[in-house]
Amino acid sequence: MYLEKVNGPADVKALEVSELQGLADEVRAAVIEKVSNHGGHIGPNLGMVEATVALHYVFESPKDKIVYDVSHQSYPHKVITSRKEAFLSPEHYDDVTGYTNPKESEHDFFTVGHTSTSVSLALGLAKARDLAGRKENIIAVIGDGSLSGGEALEAIDYAGEYDKNLIIMVNDNDQSIAENHGGIYKNLRELRQSNGQCEKNIFKSMGLDYRYLEAGHDIEQLVAMFESVKDIDHPVVVHVHTIKGKGLPYAEKNREPWHWGMPFNVADGSSKMNLPPEDSTLHDSLIELLDNNPQAVVLNAGTPSSMGFTQEVRAKYVPRGQFVDVGIAEENAMAMISGIAKNGGTPVFGTYAPFLQRTYDQLSHDLCLNDNPATIIVLWAGIYGMNSNTHIALCDISFFAHVPNLVYLAPTNKEEYLQMFKFATTQRKHPVAIRMPIALPETGVADTTDYSILNKAKVLAKGSDVAIIGVSNMLGLAQETAKAYEAKTGKKATVINPCYLTGLDKALLESLKKDHSLVITLEDGQVEGGYGQMVASYYGDSAMKVKNFGISKAFHTEFTTDGILADHGMTVDSLVEYMTK
Amino acid sequence: MYLEKVNGPADVKALEVSELQGLADEVRAAVIEKVSNHGGHIGPNLGMVEATVALHYVFESPKDKIVYDVSHQSYPHKVITSRKEAFLSPEHYDDVTGYTNPKESEHDFFTVGHTSTSVSLALGLAKARDLAGRKENIIAVIGDGSLSGGEALEAIDYAGEYDKNLIIMVNDNDQSIAENHGGIYKNLRELRQSNGQCEKNIFKSMGLDYRYLEAGHDIEQLVAMFESVKDIDHPVVVHVHTIKGKGLPYAEKNREPWHWGMPFNVADGSSKMNLPPEDSTLHDSLIELLDNNPQAVVLNAGTPSSMGFTQEVRAKYVPRGQFVDVGIAEENAMAMISGIAKNGGTPVFGTYAPFLQRTYDQLSHDLCLNDNPATIIVLWAGIYGMNSNTHIALCDISFFAHVPNLVYLAPTNKEEYLQMFKFATTQRKHPVAIRMPIALPETGVADTTDYSILNKAKVLAKGSDVAIIGVSNMLGLAQETAKAYEAKTGKKATVINPCYLTGLDKALLESLKKDHSLVITLEDGQVEGGYGQMVASYYGDSAMKVKNFGISKAFHTEFTTDGILADHGMTVDSLVEYMTK
Repeated sequence: MYLEKVNGPADVKALEVSELQGLADEVRAAVIEKVSNHGGHIGPNLGMVEATVALHYVFESPKDKIVYDVSHQSYPHKVITSRKEAFLSPEHYDDVTGYTNPKESEHDFFTVGHTSTSVSLALGLAKARDLAGRKENIIAVIGDGSLSGGEALEAIDYAGEYDKNLIIMVNDNDQSIAENHGGIYKNLRELRQSNGQCEKNIFKSMGLDYRYLEAGHDIEQLVAMFESVKDIDHPVVVHVHTIKGKGLPYAEKNREPWHWGMPFNVADGSSKMNLPPEDSTLHDSLIELLDNNPQAVVLNAGTPSSMGFTQEVRAKYVPRGQFVDVGIAEENAMAMISGIAKNGGTPVFGTYAPFLQRTYDQLSHDLCLNDNPATIIVLWAGIYGMNSNTHIALCDISFFAHVPNLVYLAPTNKEEYLQMFKFATTQRKHPVAIRMPIALPETGVADTTDYSILNKAKVLAKGSDVAIIGVSNMLGLAQETAKAYEAKTGKKATVINPCYLTGLDKALLESLKKDHSLVITLEDGQVEGGYGQMVASYYGDSAMKVKNFGISKAFHTEFTTDGILADHGMTVDSLVEYMTK
Repeated sequence: MYLEKVNGPADVKALEVSELQGLADEVRAAVIEKVSNHGGHIGPNLGMVEATVALHYVFESPKDKIVYDVSHQSYPHKVITSRKEAFLSPEHYDDVTGYTNPKESEHDFFTVGHTSTSVSLALGLAKARDLAGRKENIIAVIGDGSLSGGEALEAIDYAGEYDKNLIIMVNDNDQSIAENHGGIYKNLRELRQSNGQCEKNIFKSMGLDYRYLEAGHDIEQLVAMFESVKDIDHPVVVHVHTIKGKGLPYAEKNREPWHWGMPFNVADGSSKMNLPPEDSTLHDSLIELLDNNPQAVVLNAGTPSSMGFTQEVRAKYVPRGQFVDVGIAEENAMAMISGIAKNGGTPVFGTYAPFLQRTYDQLSHDLCLNDNPATIIVLWAGIYGMNSNTHIALCDISFFAHVPNLVYLAPTNKEEYLQMFKFATTQRKHPVAIRMPIALPETGVADTTDYSILNKAKVLAKGSDVAIIGVSNMLGLAQETAKAYEAKTGKKATVINPCYLTGLDKALLESLKKDHSLVITLEDGQVEGGYGQMVASYYGDSAMKVKNFGISKAFHTEFTTDGILADHGMTVDSLVEYMTK
C-alpha cells in the first residue's frame, strides 16, 4: 500500500511520519519475502528496517550520503532506493547484489563487503565535501560487531579530532555474526543499560559527541534523533539499540544461525533446503588437536562456525581456554599466534581467505619475520569460495606465497590434509598455512609423506613430453586432462601435485628437462603473482616451454565456477587442444 | 660506577632502590654516547631510561617477558641486558640492531620495527603461558603514538576481555614522531592533567583496569607502581607520563626533529654531519598540487617529514585542510583516500613502503575494488630504502602490482616523475601508485608522455638479440650493462623502461620476438611475485628465453646495496657475462 508508491527516497519524504511504520512493515515483509525464498543476510537487515526508513525520511540521499558498513544491512535501503523489484519479484532477485553497489544506484557510494570500513570511507567523503566547501551530511552506519576491527577503530579515533559534519550511527544489536568479543562490548552493554548515561563511554573517550536512542524500532523517535543531528557541525555518534532479526521471532531468539541463511519457511523458520551434512574433516582435526595437546588453541576472528565451532562446541572449549574468538580483529589474531607459538603454545588461526588479506603486515612482520611455528587455516580461497567481488579471494597465493619463511600447503584430499595438519601443528620451525580445498575426496590410504622436506612435490603420473602441475583445487582437472590426452593421443602426460605453494621442487623441475618439452600449470587463482609464474621464471632461460593457466587479473564477480574456468581455458577439452596443437 | 657491574637484570635487582637513579644516569649517558656518535632513535629511548631500570628491578626477565612496541625505545633495555658494549665501545656499535632481536638476547622476544604490535604479541605470550598453567608476568610497553594503530586498538580491546595477567605500560610522552593525531590523544591529555582521575578514560571504556603515574622519571615511584601490578591476575594499563628526549634540553624542547637523528654534538645538538640538501622534487610537486587545486589534499600516517611536511609547512597547509596526518593509522588513510576521490577530491597518500603493507585490504577492497582515482606515493621501496629486516620493503611490487585496477608507476628520473604525478593527480579513472626512486636524475627535457595509455613501455635503446628491462631503480644498471655489452661484443642490446609495474606492454613484448632471443629483467625487489615473473610467464610457451634477476625470497637485513646486488648477479660484469655465455 505504501511501498508500491515508493520509488525513491523522495517518496519516503512525501509521507507523514505517522505513515512511516506502515512503510517499514512493508519493507520488512519484502526483505523476508526475498530472503526466505532466495537466502541471504536475515538478522542484520531486519534490525535496520525502521532506522533505514527514518534515515531516508530525514536526510536527502544522494546529496546526503549514507555509507553502510559491510553492507549486510543494506537490503531495506535497496528496497527504498528504486530496487524493490529485486525483493518482490523472483525473476528480479538476482538483479542486485547483497551489498551496496554504485553501479546499481546513485544512493550507493561504495562496493563493500568487508567489515569496519564505513567510518574511514565516510571520513573521506566528508573531507572532499569540506575541501569543496559544500555542506551535505555524511552518515556512516556501522554495526556493533564491526567496531572491533582495526580500520574502524583507527577511523573513529581520527573522527574524534575531525571538526566538521560526520554522523556515525552505531547500529547496536548486541551481536556480531556470533557473540561479540572485546572490552568495548562491556561498555556498549553499560551504555544500553544506562540509556547512554554511564560514566565510561568509548566514543566520548575518543573525542566524539554522543547521543543514545534505546527505541531503535520506534520510527518517530528515530526521526527525531536524526533530525537533531542533521547538519551538525562536528562528528557525532548516534548509538541506536536495535534488535537483530526483528520481526521473525525465531531469528530474534537465535541470532547467530539467523545472521545469514538459505531459503526457509517463514512460518516456523524451518529450512526449505535439504543440504547434505558438511564435511567435518577440518573440525574433527581441530578437536583432536585440542583434546590431545592442552597447549593447543584455535583462534578465529568473528566467524567461529566457519570451522565448526558452533555455540555448543564453544561451550566446551572456551572454558578450557582452547578456543578464542577475538571478534572481528584479524590483525590481532595473526599477531597473537606469533606470541603463542613463541611462548610454547600450538596456535591455529583460521578464517576466510578474503579476510586474511587484512593481516598482510602481521603475517609478514609479526609472524614470518619471527619465524614462529603457528598454523593458519585458509578457507574458501580461489574460485570455489565466495564469488562476489566484495569477497573475492583469487589473490591468496599472490599475497601468501611470497612472504619469506611461510610454508603454504595445498592439500588435495582428506588424507593429505590430515598429514599436512599434523605436520603443521607438531613442527616448531616455521609458520605454516593450509589452503583448505573445496572438496576433500578420500583416497582410503593414509598419507605418510614427511612434509618437513620442504617444497617436495608429488608425481602422480609419470609420462613424457608434457607435464601438468595441478595446483590445489585444480589437481583433479590436471588428472582428467591427462586421461583425456592419453585417450586422444595414446601418450601419457606427467601429472604433478606441488603440495607446497611457497617454493618449487627444483630437483623435480630440473629432471623434467630430460624428457619433457612443455609444463602446464593450472591454478584457480590469479595468474599474476601466482604459483605458475614461479615455474615460468624457473624455466625462463631453458628450452622448456611453460604455459600458465589461471584466472585473469580483475575483480571477477557473480561467476559460476565452470564458467570462469572455461573462460580461462581450464576445461579438459581446451587443455587437451592446447596440448595437441 | 654502577653500569660496569651490570651485566644483566640480576645485577640491577641486586642494587638498592636508592642506587637505581645512579644506574639510570649511566644508562642515559651510554645511550647519548652512542646515538651522538652513531645516530639512531634519540627521544624515545631517553624517555624510557628510568622506566626500563624500574621494570628490570621489579620483574624477572626473561621469565617475566617485556615486549617493546616498535622497539624504538629498547636501547636502555639493551644496555641493561648484556649489550652495553654496543653502546660504550664504538667498535661494537654495530653488534646490535636498533630493535629488539631474539638472536641478540634471551631478554628480547620478537624482532619488531613496526608500530602497534606489542599488545597483540604480549597477549599471545600470555595465552601460551595460561595454556601451560604458568604464572610469569607479561608486560607490553607501548608508546602513546603507537596507540592509534588498528592492530594496537584491536589488541587493547581484546585485552579488555582477557582474564589473566597482562600489564600494558603506556609510555606517554605526548608525541608520536610528529605530534599525535586522533581523539584518544585529547583523552590522554585529560588523563595527564587530572592525574588519571578524569571521567573519560579510553582504557577503562575498553574494559581495562587502569593506574596512572605522573612521575615517569622518578624511579622510586616507578618501582612502587610496577610492584603494585606485579603478578596481577587480570589485564591492567599502567599509564606513565614520560618526557621524550629526557636529559637533552634541546631534544626535550624540539621533540619531532629529535625522534631520530644522525650523529650530533652533545653540547648544543648541532649536527656532526654535513649532509647535502634532500631532493625536493616530491615535496615541490605536492605543494604545487595543493596550491593549484583547492580540492587536493595530502595525507600521511605519522611520518609527515617523509614528504617534507615539516612543522613549518604543516602550519600553512593544515589550516587550509589540505594536509592531513591521520596519526599512525595507515588503514584509515588508505580507505579515506577512496572516499575523498569518490566525492570529487584529489587525494595523495604517501608513506614508507614497509608501512603500506598494513593497508593491503584497504588498498584492494576499499580503494581498488571501487576504482577511485587516488594517488599513493610509495617511499623507500626496494633495496635503497631501509635495510633492516624490520623495515624491509622488497615485496612492494609483489603486493601492489597484482591488485586489480591499480596502476603502479615507476618513474626513473625527475621529468618522468613530474609527468607521472601530473597524470596521477589529474586523471579520474583509477587509483595510481608511484614508486619513488632513490635518485631522480634530471634529463633536462620535459617528459610529455601520455601516461593514460596504460602499460606502454619506453624503448630507450633499440638493439637486437638481447633486451634488458630495467625496472625502477634498476634502469641505470640496465643502461650501463648494455653499454658494457656493446663495448665487449660490438652488439647493441635493447633497453626498456617498463614505466608501469601493474601490466605488460604486450605489443612491445610481442614485437621483440622478431629479432630478440633473450629478455633479461632487473628489479631491486623480490623475484617471487615480482615484475620479471610476469614477463617470464608471458613468453613461457614461446621461443623467447627470459632471465629474471632480482632479490631472493628472505628477510634480508643489514646489507649494502652494492653487496646485495652483487650477491644476486646484478652487476654490470656478471650481467654481461650472462649475456655472452
